[in-house]
Amino acid sequence: MRFVHESLPQRVCFDSGGAARAVAAEIELVKAERLMVVAATPEADLAERVTAGLPVVVRHDEVVMHVPIEIAERARKVAANRAVDALVCVGGGSTTGLAKAIAMTTGLPIVAVPTTYAGSEATPVWGLTDGDRKTTGVDPVVLPRSVVYDASLTLGLPVEMSVASGLNALAHCVDSLWAPGANPLNAALAAEGARALHGALPEVANHPKDLPGREQALYGAYLAAVAFAAAGSGLHHKICHVLGGKYNLPHAQTHAIVLPYVLAFNAPNAPEAADRLARAFGTPSAPAGLESLRARLDAPRALRDFGFAESEIPAAVSAILPFVPASNPTPVTPDDLALLLRAAWEGSDWR
Amino acid sequence: MRFVHESLPQRVCFDSGGAARAVAAEIELVKAERLMVVAATPEADLAERVTAGLPVVVRHDEVVMHVPIEIAERARKVAANRAVDALVCVGGGSTTGLAKAIAMTTGLPIVAVPTTYAGSEATPVWGLTDGDRKTTGVDPVVLPRSVVYDASLTLGLPVEMSVASGLNALAHCVDSLWAPGANPLNAALAAEGARALHGALPEVANHPKDLPGREQALYGAYLAAVAFAAAGSGLHHKICHVLGGKYNLPHAQTHAIVLPYVLAFNAPNAPEAADRLARAFGTPSAPAGLESLRARLDAPRALRDFGFAESEIPAAVSAILPFVPASNPTPVTPDDLALLLRAAWEGSDWR
Repeated sequence: MRFVHESLPQRVCFDSGGAARAVAAEIELVKAERLMVVAATPEADLAERVTAGLPVVVRHDEVVMHVPIEIAERARKVAANRAVDALVCVGGGSTTGLAKAIAMTTGLPIVAVPTTYAGSEATPVWGLTDGDRKTTGVDPVVLPRSVVYDASLTLGLPVEMSVASGLNALAHCVDSLWAPGANPLNAALAAEGARALHGALPEVANHPKDLPGREQALYGAYLAAVAFAAAGSGLHHKICHVLGGKYNLPHAQTHAIVLPYVLAFNAPNAPEAADRLARAFGTPSAPAGLESLRARLDAPRALRDFGFAESEIPAAVSAILPFVPASNPTPVTPDDLALLLRAAWEGSDWR
Repeated sequence: MRFVHESLPQRVCFDSGGAARAVAAEIELVKAERLMVVAATPEADLAERVTAGLPVVVRHDEVVMHVPIEIAERARKVAANRAVDALVCVGGGSTTGLAKAIAMTTGLPIVAVPTTYAGSEATPVWGLTDGDRKTTGVDPVVLPRSVVYDASLTLGLPVEMSVASGLNALAHCVDSLWAPGANPLNAALAAEGARALHGALPEVANHPKDLPGREQALYGAYLAAVAFAAAGSGLHHKICHVLGGKYNLPHAQTHAIVLPYVLAFNAPNAPEAADRLARAFGTPSAPAGLESLRARLDAPRALRDFGFAESEIPAAVSAILPFVPASNPTPVTPDDLALLLRAAWEGSDWR
């Protein structure tokens, strides 16, 4: 047993229907008096409700996916000009990402109110894009001081998006079991997250307007993010990162599609991880558990449905290979990777 | 789902046989150049080995159980006089407790190297005694920055003490499931800790000189402490706190004896907690799992073997009742408590 685990300081509040109260309490803890609220236009009303009565000096809605650097610069200027002393972000990964970009240069504390299962709120990872070049990094200053999970804010997330985002969160759990920073503590958090997501996602799909499934999904997504942030990217995330960046495939869907193939590829050589997942799923095997979950969710199945062409497989293999983590339990050959991508492209059964 | 959970910042290193290397790395991170090493005489040699080559300016061995205030004051003066810039403590709960007492007033960072399953190293709780009055409190500044778990340092812990200390750690897991700050995150950590301890303690008892059981026991004890620090004291700890303080019973043994009675008392009204524990133990029921574990460990069974008299039960009941947490799943009457203490006094089967 040899590993290092770093626990990061963060307050997490679960309070369904109580976001306004919880945010007010967290803002009081950071003693802020001039708030900048970051929320994209679709979440503007939610954000208004969640921050009603707080000392908001500016509301900022210029949120763009992948946080282009010029968007971040503008938001930073707004924060400086208005002498902001804390940030409240209400939204998904891109919104949290913009708040992090502001915190990165200003040191402002963030209170994050997530409305998807992206998980960015629970990690110290930031991302910025300059043209088509995406840079990511880790900085403790961007980790939100507090996260407020209010499942009632997620009731409007469409089922299709909820499923893709939830499977993306499940991918955090699964991949963290063999990522470079995998350790028993991360694995325990990941397993608990996988258990919660496995139970929650069918509930969300069948009863998207009911709180219990939504609460469990948020809870699972939070654990998934904590485990993933500590463990780092495994094979699955390396594949999806290349596919997303090079072929502009949609983030959550790409993860949802690729995950079962990576799991099937690694499970035979990662018996402890597979066993943990099987127990979390309550199924005889981890791949079988994931497969039946996807069937119940009517999850996206084929990369070709999202703009990835079969002819691009060889180039994708070459682009992915240099990033394959040395820690991956199953050695990865170019042929393996081509077979895996071919199957994910087609959405076929494999192995 | 409504709760607040605070994750505390701490680095945890598991490195069997590698304590010296790990401590050196952690000291480098806190950029310390003048170390005070706190270790009681029995651990002096261990501490010397673990800190060999480091810039130690003073070794302090005046360690006394429950950290009497005058002992703490003397240690604080030593730290000030020698212009110490970091503390390394090597030992059990009392040693860690003294380092915390120094950190409390000086703000010095602690690198803790535990040699028992006490768990103090993973909590921001401090304790001081003034005469026979014990004061405890919570202060983030006393939480060690880093903990180095080296199972090889625990190979000398006698089996009897290991079992009592391990069951004390298990009590942290169990009680945190219904303590005032119980929440799903603490419960997940506690369940993982209980799983590890349940597997580890028989290994430790049968093969005290083998690393695998010792590693799992330390791992479980760490999780137990994290869960317990966040959840606070439940019924079990309130009972043991009164018994320990009022009748001077030995800490770990008292916990080991009382735990099954509290579990049997609460389990029927805490089905989720009981179910989690049963799964962690891999047994049909939580009380049965704990009972069979204790039998395999030849654990201490009766308070009367440790100096508690039957005639003291009524006074103990009166002393405990005011501290019974409102969150306890089973309402506690004076008669219940008397029956429970009578059974624990005698070590008899109960319910």
